[in-house]
Amino acid sequence: MKKCFTVLAIFLMVLTALPAWCDTVPISDATRDCLDCHESIHPGIVEDWKRSRHALITPKKAMTEKGLSLKVSSKDVPKEYLDVAVGCAECHTGRSKSHSDTFNHNEYDVHTVVSPEDCATCHSQEVKQYSENIMSYAFTNLDSNLLYQDLQHSILGKPAIKGGELVLEQASVETREEACYYCHGTKIEVKGSETRDTDMGEMDFPVLAGWPNQGVGRINPDGSRGSCAACHTRHVFSMEMARKPYTCKECHVGPDVPAYKVYTSSKHGNIFSSLEKNWNFSNVPWTIGKDFQAPTCAACHISLVTNTDGEVVAERTHTMSNRLSWRIFGLIYAHPQPKDPDTTKIRNKSNLPLPTDFDGGFASNYLINKDEMAKRTQTMQGICAACHSDSWVKGHWARYENTIKETNEKTLVATQIMQQIWDAGYAKGPALGKSPFDDAIEKKWSDIWLFYANTTRFASAMAGGGDYGVFADGRYHINQGIMELKDWLDIRNSISPRPEVPSSEAKKKSAEKASEGKNDQ
Amino acid sequence: MKKCFTVLAIFLMVLTALPAWCDTVPISDATRDCLDCHESIHPGIVEDWKRSRHALITPKKAMTEKGLSLKVSSKDVPKEYLDVAVGCAECHTGRSKSHSDTFNHNEYDVHTVVSPEDCATCHSQEVKQYSENIMSYAFTNLDSNLLYQDLQHSILGKPAIKGGELVLEQASVETREEACYYCHGTKIEVKGSETRDTDMGEMDFPVLAGWPNQGVGRINPDGSRGSCAACHTRHVFSMEMARKPYTCKECHVGPDVPAYKVYTSSKHGNIFSSLEKNWNFSNVPWTIGKDFQAPTCAACHISLVTNTDGEVVAERTHTMSNRLSWRIFGLIYAHPQPKDPDTTKIRNKSNLPLPTDFDGGFASNYLINKDEMAKRTQTMQGICAACHSDSWVKGHWARYENTIKETNEKTLVATQIMQQIWDAGYAKGPALGKSPFDDAIEKKWSDIWLFYANTTRFASAMAGGGDYGVFADGRYHINQGIMELKDWLDIRNSISPRPEVPSSEAKKKSAEKASEGKNDQ
Amino acid sequence: MKKCFTVLAIFLMVLTALPAWCDTVPISDATRDCLDCHESIHPGIVEDWKRSRHALITPKKAMTEKGLSLKVSSKDVPKEYLDVAVGCAECHTGRSKSHSDTFNHNEYDVHTVVSPEDCATCHSQEVKQYSENIMSYAFTNLDSNLLYQDLQHSILGKPAIKGGELVLEQASVETREEACYYCHGTKIEVKGSETRDTDMGEMDFPVLAGWPNQGVGRINPDGSRGSCAACHTRHVFSMEMARKPYTCKECHVGPDVPAYKVYTSSKHGNIFSSLEKNWNFSNVPWTIGKDFQAPTCAACHISLVTNTDGEVVAERTHTMSNRLSWRIFGLIYAHPQPKDPDTTKIRNKSNLPLPTDFDGGFASNYLINKDEMAKRTQTMQGICAACHSDSWVKGHWARYENTIKETNEKTLVATQIMQQIWDAGYAKGPALGKSPFDDAIEKKWSDIWLFYANTTRFASAMAGGGDYGVFADGRYHINQGIMELKDWLDIRNSISPRPEVPSSEAKKKSAEKASEGKNDQ
Repeated sequence: MKKCFTVLAIFLMVLTALPAWCDTVPISDATRDCLDCHESIHPGIVEDWKRSRHALITPKKAMTEKGLSLKVSSKDVPKEYLDVAVGCAECHTGRSKSHSDTFNHNEYDVHTVVSPEDCATCHSQEVKQYSENIMSYAFTNLDSNLLYQDLQHSILGKPAIKGGELVLEQASVETREEACYYCHGTKIEVKGSETRDTDMGEMDFPVLAGWPNQGVGRINPDGSRGSCAACHTRHVFSMEMARKPYTCKECHVGPDVPAYKVYTSSKHGNIFSSLEKNWNFSNVPWTIGKDFQAPTCAACHISLVTNTDGEVVAERTHTMSNRLSWRIFGLIYAHPQPKDPDTTKIRNKSNLPLPTDFDGGFASNYLINKDEMAKRTQTMQGICAACHSDSWVKGHWARYENTIKETNEKTLVATQIMQQIWDAGYAKGPALGKSPFDDAIEKKWSDIWLFYANTTRFASAMAGGGDYGVFADGRYHINQGIMELKDWLDIRNSISPRPEVPSSEAKKKSAEKASEGKNDQ
Repeated sequence: MKKCFTVLAIFLMVLTALPAWCDTVPISDATRDCLDCHESIHPGIVEDWKRSRHALITPKKAMTEKGLSLKVSSKDVPKEYLDVAVGCAECHTGRSKSHSDTFNHNEYDVHTVVSPEDCATCHSQEVKQYSENIMSYAFTNLDSNLLYQDLQHSILGKPAIKGGELVLEQASVETREEACYYCHGTKIEVKGSETRDTDMGEMDFPVLAGWPNQGVGRINPDGSRGSCAACHTRHVFSMEMARKPYTCKECHVGPDVPAYKVYTSSKHGNIFSSLEKNWNFSNVPWTIGKDFQAPTCAACHISLVTNTDGEVVAERTHTMSNRLSWRIFGLIYAHPQPKDPDTTKIRNKSNLPLPTDFDGGFASNYLINKDEMAKRTQTMQGICAACHSDSWVKGHWARYENTIKETNEKTLVATQIMQQIWDAGYAKGPALGKSPFDDAIEKKWSDIWLFYANTTRFASAMAGGGDYGVFADGRYHINQGIMELKDWLDIRNSISPRPEVPSSEAKKKSAEKASEGKNDQ
Repeated sequence: MKKCFTVLAIFLMVLTALPAWCDTVPISDATRDCLDCHESIHPGIVEDWKRSRHALITPKKAMTEKGLSLKVSSKDVPKEYLDVAVGCAECHTGRSKSHSDTFNHNEYDVHTVVSPEDCATCHSQEVKQYSENIMSYAFTNLDSNLLYQDLQHSILGKPAIKGGELVLEQASVETREEACYYCHGTKIEVKGSETRDTDMGEMDFPVLAGWPNQGVGRINPDGSRGSCAACHTRHVFSMEMARKPYTCKECHVGPDVPAYKVYTSSKHGNIFSSLEKNWNFSNVPWTIGKDFQAPTCAACHISLVTNTDGEVVAERTHTMSNRLSWRIFGLIYAHPQPKDPDTTKIRNKSNLPLPTDFDGGFASNYLINKDEMAKRTQTMQGICAACHSDSWVKGHWARYENTIKETNEKTLVATQIMQQIWDAGYAKGPALGKSPFDDAIEKKWSDIWLFYANTTRFASAMAGGGDYGVFADGRYHINQGIMELKDWLDIRNSISPRPEVPSSEAKKKSAEKASEGKNDQ
């Protein structure tokens, strides 16, 4: 009969809650002014906002939630925000002096680009955590790393035939913004202003470079890093969406980071796809077994999750890497997580800005140590333990560690063959101060570590075994790639009179040149 | 308190509507006769139909809907249809003289293949629009274009080794119907009749070639083009299904047209996947923000969408291309949309039935001009503007236009290398009157423009950036493909004593021959 | 008004059912003891179990269901199980003498790995059927077939450069368990025991090799084959999940067996994706049109499906292959289904453990004959007929049979070119007693039959035509692969002084050696 009471109780709770829900939340005069026009001009985002928690509760009321269900982590929310809905004006006119894109719009100081620092007004703890997340440096870590710029150039650059040779010219700004920086984030800068003819007559607006963008490492006009809307889609900003894997899929679909594809083919993903319609994606804290029956990306990497006794299984973190021991995204080998989210400082033993050496060693000074790795492993395993026995978890982990070792070893063999190709002069590599990424055969080499080794590791990490660990960009393709590298070398050896190979002296000089980061682009 | 009233109002509306819903809709005697047997024989489709709007409302009643909620666009629905459900007999026995597949079935003149002209009985406007849609010519445009037949032959043809050479023999009819024509549509023709032993005893049925098929450009036994069931799946024929991206996925999954994959990895697709369970996919008109929170394929390309004030944002169109300026499906370059849905008339400057020249020019006489492009762009941008600011839309568009230019330029470089390979005689191309698609190295070239350039453009068009614009058949693969083309040429140059190259005179003649469309298959 | 009565009737039924649902189901003392700790330690699985039918009904009550709605197929369920929920103890302590992993756990004889034989306590018929399913032999059929071990070794083996040659060293146990055996199943063996420090103090547990695993052909510590949890995910063990395609996706995503990808791009998959939220996935029997509107994997291959008159359209089978005439997974050609689930006995005419000859013949003695094929085809077509006319089904089938023939013929041409390469000595193949899978060019050959021919056949079988039959690992790639094989051979012929080719005598000897299964690994 216990269940009957539960049903009755829920019913009564709903009845009791109704009046509260029917209470309207006051809207500030400024937001009212925004809505007066934008409700008609931009109905989509206004309707989204109306469904959002921001529209349905005031910060003051939200702050009455304490303990694990706390959602507003700032203690010092400005007084003028406390008793109104968090509306257009609250986000787009606050901290106006800090934003270089602030402009006068119907007598309000409005800025287009809402930054994490704006969100920190109420959610300071999450923003602080996120600032320590390597994702917040996604722009900088790509844009200020000469070696990664080499790789980017080989992918985005404009091919041209010059003097019978294939060369790559600089990609346009638009191409770069739409490609790598779509996910990594752009740098948004005010380039001037323009007058536009609008429904309300002529108006002035700032001209923004790098806009639109919602990348995780976006450099905002107030100098801050990141965009909360990358995961908490504007203008509903919900936990629901951020907790579902579709959000992560935007940037993690593969083949370089096939998290989504592997997840949805795993047992966890199967459970999610089949049963998620019955789950609660909005409860805080998020209770294992009650609210959800299998982890999504967020459950393992971010969310505050509790057991059915209300005990914390894992604390909420917007740093994310603090549940991760290994970085399984090969650069060019899987390696311990970097200590610092700013990875531009890293130098390997060849003085390249890379967390591993071409011969498989780790740039250990810049990476977390074994103790820290063990600690993070324990945090993650604590989540597994809510559904799995110790022997299950240990067994899974042994395979995962084996896969990291295995794929790194295979990457090493691929790199050794690549080195032979460079040594033979069939392609121009780092020893000549040239990009190791811009020849056809170098791309075959990068296929191996960037796509196939990564895919194999993601399959292992998420127990998504099956096809992604074998036939779908997995081990089949690692070995095929290595065989093809060797086959290409053998064919070249059969036909080519060896091109002039630089003397040891010249080689050494080139290496020095390379190590100064003076790669030719 | 406003919300409480809304809830109350909805409740009352439901109560009021109930009696109407409980009214049974009369079924014609003929349909009753059909159902008497087929309810047992084909329960699946009968149950589908029972759930359909066709079964739940009479045309007369449907015609009382006016203005934006109008669903029956014909003004002259025949009297005998007005007061009965649109059942088996209404669709399968109407216009019986026009259908060459009409046969006597229990004293009824029944035809198997229901055509758009049948649907036009009630939905004349949609059928007329669709007849101007390039999709309605999908069979003809493929089947009657010698160059595309060359491409098709290189894909479907049966390889054989003859005299040490690899040749391609004609694919079987079944292969062609199942492959390209599955989506493009088959030509359905009556090939005779047969007697079958059925549950009801021996009966005669027509034998249909090209059946089954629901391709968008199907040639029907009444001579009409297309199949409404391609998108409005029989026998529910719902707007709901047609408005969801799963329907489009049947033919647009990739890598040549990866619309579905890109969409579901975009922000729009993320919102759809996460929140669609709460949306209304049946309302007409379809209100932005209220009925749905992010566009599906249909919202941008087809549906009548309105804002929350009830104003039209975009008119319904079954022509679809009239919201499109560019055709991003490369043939072999992206190009302005064709003027006419019948593209068999197009000739480029080499007199090939191709909307672009091999050197990147456009067959402009056959394509829409800049004014028309601007007009269509404006229509599409009007939809974006319901959720996005002007600077957002303009910024997105600048990148999109850049990507078209960029991928076309890269395709040109690939084609220049391919031309060198043809010139060197390492593969036999158009200058010799040969198919440009049937050598290994030609397939590597077509990978570039058919898969990678297209994928990159779809990623750009839908702001699906991330992996599809870079690592998943995107820019990484464009440049890799170009490098591999060049590498192959270099290897060939190293090893091959040049085969006899045709003299300029011979070349010219071959070109002429090719231009007459006399390609060898 | 009939519908109104239906609504009323449903409402009354719900009211009537409520008290029954609120009845609590007794839990055995042993299970109560388990729950006392594990409810806190493993909340996820306990909550799953609470939602399961196992927790909500006693076997005795379930056994009152007769006829088509029968779920407990055993007639002799032990008395002590009849009146309690099927809880932790019922599955994990039963048949304790049979399980070599049984250990003393708080005075209970507990085994970790629940096997099909345990499930047979109540579900004997399903377990018997499954034991005749080729999937139950998935471990053995891979592990005890020397040729397949060759293929596995070429994929999982560790590449190394030795004496300038690329060799493959044995893969680690962990790699094998995580890769192929993730789906095929591992062999679980007790390797000893260990003492662990738990929340409840020090406790002893068995150490299991091959754990965790839920593969379909798992060898359990009681000697039985398979894991019901592969499809009926622990600990909800629902029909709902097993009936949805997400479960099958875990092992059938591609490119070798792209069932899921093809299905979701087919009309059936489109209907499922769009409308499944309204379907009933738990009803037994499963009624076409009422419970579901388009087949999922289970509907065609496993489930008991009935028409709306309650007549059986297809009997439930856990053997699965008994609705299948062809095995479209090429080894290396598509072929009639094997007679016996144990395929290790099969020998082709070259005495290789392969169901087809390299020249395309079938090892017919080991495969079902034409009569059996016809019978199985009829069973499957009976399901199609619930929604499709005879001419539709026959038309579809003709294309499907054509595709099997077509793809087998294309595989033959690829194999003929591969044979020329072996004959020329450019790769070492079976005639030299070497693996046919471990050279770069051999991998290109296996791409053709393992990925592209399979994908094309899956597209055909499920009428998923479109991209998977053409551009997405389909016919485009079959022909491209064949062209590239030939191109590679041509380049080799141009450059290579032919390596020493073994004399006919030597060849013969090697062939004999190969036929003894003495392949070098």
